[in-house]
Amino acid sequence: MRVIGIDPGLRTLGWGVIEVAGSRLSHVANGLCCSSGTDLGARLLSLHDQLTDIVSRFAPTAAAVEQTFVNRDGAGTLKLGQARGIAMLVPAQAGLPIGEYAPNAVKKAIVGVGHADKMQIAHMMGVHFPGVELAGPDAADALAIAVCHAHHLQSAGRLQAAIARAS
Amino acid sequence: MRVIGIDPGLRTLGWGVIEVAGSRLSHVANGLCCSSGTDLGARLLSLHDQLTDIVSRFAPTAAAVEQTFVNRDGAGTLKLGQARGIAMLVPAQAGLPIGEYAPNAVKKAIVGVGHADKMQIAHMMGVHFPGVELAGPDAADALAIAVCHAHHLQSAGRLQAAIARAS
Repeated sequence: MRVIGIDPGLRTLGWGVIEVAGSRLSHVANGLCCSSGTDLGARLLSLHDQLTDIVSRFAPTAAAVEQTFVNRDGAGTLKLGQARGIAMLVPAQAGLPIGEYAPNAVKKAIVGVGHADKMQIAHMMGVHFPGVELAGPDAADALAIAVCHAHHLQSAGRLQAAIARAS
Repeated sequence: MRVIGIDPGLRTLGWGVIEVAGSRLSHVANGLCCSSGTDLGARLLSLHDQLTDIVSRFAPTAAAVEQTFVNRDGAGTLKLGQARGIAMLVPAQAGLPIGEYAPNAVKKAIVGVGHADKMQIAHMMGVHFPGVELAGPDAADALAIAVCHAHHLQSAGRLQAAIARAS
């Protein structure tokens, strides 16, 4: 199974692809989709086209997207929501099942605590995938989301196996 | 010129298409794109496909999308933002220029006051386009956004003409 993790953002959208073989995770690629300018439609289109290209190039079989809640201000949340709409649409267009994880759940799964900062996430990705170059903190976050999804699927698989053995 | 107005929403997205010939506006079509279920990716994909179909069927040459700000709660704003991302993406994919209007600006342009309710908007759409059946309040809002955009473009046109005469 191959998982793409996506950390949505209007200016910078992070993505990371990992390969999952049993309990073994390996890094495939990570990067950033960037959009700039004042034309919102053009920015969303640019994010959509870049992410579609990545999904088509690396052919993941599952996706996981950060479930973001920003309560700072309505305008910021709306902007992020628009980018997140694209981050959810692209894997849906490719027919991928999509997992959603709250930032704290991802941090807890990766670092062990729910309030870890971006530096700790990037550090742990370096531990998971030694020698891999990270495109930036948002790409590290995206990889962490993919790893979190892989762990989630692995425990769901172990649970199913245990149920099968017990019955 | 043909304008599509879009009132974004995750459950119900309203749309309305009008034809603009000089100062004369005529109704082409209006309707609702609906999505249900708990799978967000599938819902956004459904909205995207329905709206893409409408844009391809009615071939507008310009689009106008309501610029929504919800400050009630972060979760509600995020949901709306995701739907609005799709509402902006589809016309951008069709290469249409997109106007954005705040709800109060639309209300003021249509009813004359910024705090008009949905009933007043629907009533005024009935006055603008007599005999036209409205698919619902969100479709009436979408038509109002299209009318607001047409008025905006007409005054911009008159301004340009006046500048041309003066120079």
